Amino acid sequence: MPKPSPFSVIDGSITAAQGFSTSSVFCDIKKLGTGKGSNKGKKHDLAVIYSEVPATAAGMYTTSQVCAAPVKVCAGRTAKGWAQAIVVNSGNANACTGRQGVKDAEAMTNAVGAALGVDPLTVLVCSTGRIGVTMPMANVLKGIAAAIPLLASGVENAHASAQAIMTSDTRPKEVAVQFKLGAKVVRIGGMCKGAGMIQPGMSGTGARPAAALHATMLGFITTDAAIQSATLQKCLDHAVAQSFNCITVDGDMSTNDTVLVLANGLAGNKTITDLSRADLAKFQAALNYVTLQLAQKIVRDGEGATKFVTVRVHGAKTAADGQAAARAVANGALVKTSWFGCDPNWGRILGALGASSCTLVEEKIDLAYALPGSKKLTYALRRGQPTSVTFAQLCKIVANPEFELHVFLNLGRGEGTMYTCDLSEEYVDFNKGDVTDPTSLGG
Amino acid sequence: MPKPSPFSVIDGSITAAQGFSTSSVFCDIKKLGTGKGSNKGKKHDLAVIYSEVPATAAGMYTTSQVCAAPVKVCAGRTAKGWAQAIVVNSGNANACTGRQGVKDAEAMTNAVGAALGVDPLTVLVCSTGRIGVTMPMANVLKGIAAAIPLLASGVENAHASAQAIMTSDTRPKEVAVQFKLGAKVVRIGGMCKGAGMIQPGMSGTGARPAAALHATMLGFITTDAAIQSATLQKCLDHAVAQSFNCITVDGDMSTNDTVLVLANGLAGNKTITDLSRADLAKFQAALNYVTLQLAQKIVRDGEGATKFVTVRVHGAKTAADGQAAARAVANGALVKTSWFGCDPNWGRILGALGASSCTLVEEKIDLAYALPGSKKLTYALRRGQPTSVTFAQLCKIVANPEFELHVFLNLGRGEGTMYTCDLSEEYVDFNKGDVTDPTSLGG
Repeated sequence: MPKPSPFSVIDGSITAAQGFSTSSVFCDIKKLGTGKGSNKGKKHDLAVIYSEVPATAAGMYTTSQVCAAPVKVCAGRTAKGWAQAIVVNSGNANACTGRQGVKDAEAMTNAVGAALGVDPLTVLVCSTGRIGVTMPMANVLKGIAAAIPLLASGVENAHASAQAIMTSDTRPKEVAVQFKLGAKVVRIGGMCKGAGMIQPGMSGTGARPAAALHATMLGFITTDAAIQSATLQKCLDHAVAQSFNCITVDGDMSTNDTVLVLANGLAGNKTITDLSRADLAKFQAALNYVTLQLAQKIVRDGEGATKFVTVRVHGAKTAADGQAAARAVANGALVKTSWFGCDPNWGRILGALGASSCTLVEEKIDLAYALPGSKKLTYALRRGQPTSVTFAQLCKIVANPEFELHVFLNLGRGEGTMYTCDLSEEYVDFNKGDVTDPTSLGG
Repeated sequence: MPKPSPFSVIDGSITAAQGFSTSSVFCDIKKLGTGKGSNKGKKHDLAVIYSEVPATAAGMYTTSQVCAAPVKVCAGRTAKGWAQAIVVNSGNANACTGRQGVKDAEAMTNAVGAALGVDPLTVLVCSTGRIGVTMPMANVLKGIAAAIPLLASGVENAHASAQAIMTSDTRPKEVAVQFKLGAKVVRIGGMCKGAGMIQPGMSGTGARPAAALHATMLGFITTDAAIQSATLQKCLDHAVAQSFNCITVDGDMSTNDTVLVLANGLAGNKTITDLSRADLAKFQAALNYVTLQLAQKIVRDGEGATKFVTVRVHGAKTAADGQAAARAVANGALVKTSWFGCDPNWGRILGALGASSCTLVEEKIDLAYALPGSKKLTYALRRGQPTSVTFAQLCKIVANPEFELHVFLNLGRGEGTMYTCDLSEEYVDFNKGDVTDPTSLGG
């Protein structure tokens, strides 16, 4: 049995922690008019998150060499360790927009800073949507002006903001937890978006994580914990490494992937530093949970996905090997299509493993399926040889909407985990776009 | 205008060169019975290729760490430089079949050797089909016994063999050329199969080509040229590097990828060695053509493919960078689905480039589209910025069943080329398989 959690899950998301408010509006960022992709429901497309006091801040960003203007702007600001507000839009990624893109991203933060009466350099900015189109700044600035007076800490506003950042997502993605540090109650809440172009490989330093390649996913986390900014960045590094950087929908890394966390200290706990062992461990555990829940929600809402699959590699020569092996399986087009067909085609899994950069010895590989959370492993292969388990028995497991795949390389102690989904016709149908309506085509 | 070819294209394929014969039979390698995937038309599933005299031989094999039994058997034999016959089956890949698989592959060569009266060690073997199922040796051996007496050099037999090796292919793939070396007429002919699990990364030495990752594709080339075996292997290395190793359908490298060439010397030309400059150049040019034609036929017949796209990267820092960039674009799920939708979504192309291992500077990138063979480039991007070319103009090019994409990185002299196709719903539908009929599920 897992140990009882050191935190409890609560309602709410980015306004669960004290001192945070949010609001969202529709300001027609796609400039739609009458196209088929038009936002008839006027879904909100711009959100603001605000902390009533300055917060320590940390960020993780795409390691794509083609990174969007907001990424360029934010990375420098979180590196300084402080922020007080975030502005986010959907509908336009502000990527591949050159110098104008950076000016526009800065203008967004300037507008928010002026309206809130805070230093614009403490305002962060994120965008998601079509690549290669400059921002409709008149609409954006009107949206910001309209959003600021609506800031509120109610859960309704948080839900609305979680919807405002959606692009191809079919549902908002939110989570919040609380736990105690000493006598103080600390809360961490978050929201994220992402469904396609999902294989984040984020870093806080610009150095690409060894095992990671590629999404647009945006994640926003708020907490009222008091924590030093350098410690917060390290906690975020750890949290993202075991969550957002372990998911893949389609193997495509985005130009815009970003996770931001603001910690405003209003919980009144003793400030967490690298030296606060017990408190740090509790905070890390809670942050890990929040990021993992959010990351898994992205995979479960993957474009066209019908299955949620956890790929666990055990006994690799190194941890990097284990992660590379898990990633190769999770990204294999033939593996993913077979899962869509509920087909336990482990030959394709071996094919993906064999083609990966992970060292392996075919004759040493064990391969097993399991239902989620179950300790019962059903072995398809032992030492590279098919077991007596029948095709029908394996089919029964793979027919579930969720299952786990365990690969034992039996070469060392390296482990790797990836959360992924199947590849369906709907993914293709969705992403082929509609050339009669350029605005319908997501980045 | 391209220079006139130093060779001419002729009818026929693997029996175009003197002294080669082939035959094929149906021997029910899938052991079908009544399943939906049953081979109702009794499509041939076993072929033999035979040279009436011993031939120099060369081979290129998958660099997957999980390689099929026939690959293990063949690699050692072509390394010795001589062969006289090849036996090939479809319906079963003889991969992930352990020690029994190797014994079965050897037994196939022994049966052919005995029936033909040649040393079994000069018989090569290839398999393609489902992974993880041991070979139905009774059927296979009956098939071999039936095929040998049918060996003939007519073009009908060659066509039938080209069909016998097909799995998910919708059509046979054959080509032949002839040219003169001195007064002697030399012929090279070939056939191949492959439609899915296509991204070969083959090597003659086991060292994975730097830029290559991953297919099942099988290619068989016969020539009556007299050429030393070491020289033949080098020629094949060059030819595969610019053909089979530059294609991708789905980014999946197979456990079975193999290209074999037999050269029996019956043309009577002066034996080609590393020192025979002019003759070597002519032979290489013809072999390059044969392999490129065959490789492109695989992409054109890619599972569910509706488009043939040539991705050319120019001005990369290094050749490896250029190839990595071309490969990243050619394998991008979002890029491929956009092509299926006839959508010139160059933002996704930049996304794929940015996530690749290729060094690039966004502000230096030019990106252009062209119709096949046309010198007219239509630029979507110059120096990282959208041009005034309209979306509709780009749509017109991408709506063609074939087009070229040119990426200019403007950083150096590295070049890279990949031949690829789009990703359609039909690919997914085909590969999701049918779990009610395991035999329908290709490897």
